[in-house]
Amino acid sequence: MKSNSKLNRVLIVGGTHGNEFTGAYLIKKFQQFPELIRRESFKTLTLFANPKAFTEVRRYISRDLNHCFSRLDLQDTTLSCYEDLRAKEIDQMFGYNSENPIDFIFDVHSTTTKMGLTLIVDNDDLFSLQLAAYLSYINSEIKVYSFGDLYPSPNLLPLRALAKSSICIEVGAIAQGVLNAEIFLKTEALVFAILDYLEKYNIGEIQSKQNTLILYKYIEAVYFPRNEHGEIQAMIHPQLEFKDYQALYPNDPMLLTLDGQTICYKGDSIVYPTFINEAAYYEKGIAMCLTQKHQITI
Amino acid sequence: MKSNSKLNRVLIVGGTHGNEFTGAYLIKKFQQFPELIRRESFKTLTLFANPKAFTEVRRYISRDLNHCFSRLDLQDTTLSCYEDLRAKEIDQMFGYNSENPIDFIFDVHSTTTKMGLTLIVDNDDLFSLQLAAYLSYINSEIKVYSFGDLYPSPNLLPLRALAKSSICIEVGAIAQGVLNAEIFLKTEALVFAILDYLEKYNIGEIQSKQNTLILYKYIEAVYFPRNEHGEIQAMIHPQLEFKDYQALYPNDPMLLTLDGQTICYKGDSIVYPTFINEAAYYEKGIAMCLTQKHQITI
Repeated sequence: MKSNSKLNRVLIVGGTHGNEFTGAYLIKKFQQFPELIRRESFKTLTLFANPKAFTEVRRYISRDLNHCFSRLDLQDTTLSCYEDLRAKEIDQMFGYNSENPIDFIFDVHSTTTKMGLTLIVDNDDLFSLQLAAYLSYINSEIKVYSFGDLYPSPNLLPLRALAKSSICIEVGAIAQGVLNAEIFLKTEALVFAILDYLEKYNIGEIQSKQNTLILYKYIEAVYFPRNEHGEIQAMIHPQLEFKDYQALYPNDPMLLTLDGQTICYKGDSIVYPTFINEAAYYEKGIAMCLTQKHQITI
Repeated sequence: MKSNSKLNRVLIVGGTHGNEFTGAYLIKKFQQFPELIRRESFKTLTLFANPKAFTEVRRYISRDLNHCFSRLDLQDTTLSCYEDLRAKEIDQMFGYNSENPIDFIFDVHSTTTKMGLTLIVDNDDLFSLQLAAYLSYINSEIKVYSFGDLYPSPNLLPLRALAKSSICIEVGAIAQGVLNAEIFLKTEALVFAILDYLEKYNIGEIQSKQNTLILYKYIEAVYFPRNEHGEIQAMIHPQLEFKDYQALYPNDPMLLTLDGQTICYKGDSIVYPTFINEAAYYEKGIAMCLTQKHQITI
């Protein structure tokens, strides 16, 4: 997004993964009470992204919808599973060439990990970095995370890639397929804080611009060990469970095998694990993501 | 089971619900290390009950396997979905008329609710009540729960109904589709404690017979309110979340609607809610189960 260009259309997304109820029910609520998300200076739209997966309480039906938004995939007519078709439909409603191109997207996800209130941003999206700096300044519970250019893949773009500027909200710990009132209310408050920021931005009232930010930057995934049948053979070590964003030192316990052996972190510098024990990552065999903690200047 | 009759075959079951990993991985571990569950006086068998649902990380494929074990259903050749066929197969392996009829079954489940270490027993199963009394005496963390004759239905019998005596282990809080090392280790210790009890029973060495027991007895389910489209309109109230087995008084907050209204408990006596916010119960619209707390003498 060009610096200082006004936002005209903002899209709030939930239910991109059908078993992440916080975002899904927030969208239902906003569709029922649209005045909650109405702001003077821009139009707020909502998207319940994967209704079929929600009905079946599954992350996706055939393919992760949040990997379907590269231009290559959107233009590939041979890709025709449920999520491929849904992505094309969403692109036609809200993409660059649609009647309602979106200036800013935020997509509400939830996680079984204790990542609290996390904002996932892209390194090169200055607008979102400024927003994240502002929000984490006014609410110290908020953490800011970036996959950098490393993950998941340039060919597997998320839904939020439809707009030039976007963030993903990731809240937890919460089990798949349930609502938790405390998390629901905190997430709703975060949505309102974002909308209020966008409104202030549009009317030139962002007063205290934050130009520094603590960013947790993805460096690598840690995989569960497996046996010859591909079955995982370890769990998160009890000392690390629910310790997202806390420093992990060389030789700290990381995993515990099913037969009771501790596997320690073998790196040579401090890292900050995130996505520790995310249910959706078991299918890839990922136990956690390691990050480095940076103080960056925007 | 006849009083004082020796146990010959004991069956440990896991993975009856495919997204409850604690039991599923315990069975995998026991199949890899059978010496852990070997005892002198009886044969311990294991069953990984629903492998297809486990592979798909779903509770079930077509129908809840844990509702498929009435004689009527097992003998009905027109019932032929995956779980119906699997139930008939399990009955042929371990049922009354099989080559390996089982004297005692315990089936390991997990829950998104904070039910800790719960034993689910049947009121008329004296052997299991005695076992539960003993276990809850040696470990005060253990709670004992009974559906009584009220739930779910005499036509929807659980897997453990294959043996005359049985219990269900229910552990939580844990999200579906993940392992938690602390819960895994506690559950494994409980499995060993049960096997040790059965061994002592067989060789006549149960020393301190407990004849009283705190039993939480199901009285009714509380349903989420819904709108005209059948969508749920409330969450567990934050004051009640994760408060399983704690006293709920008349007019205590119970639910919070999506638009912020508190719904209070309108009964006229103290109850003890369980299964508060169980993910698997959302499809039935159940928010929690209410119980009465009884001290019973066996």
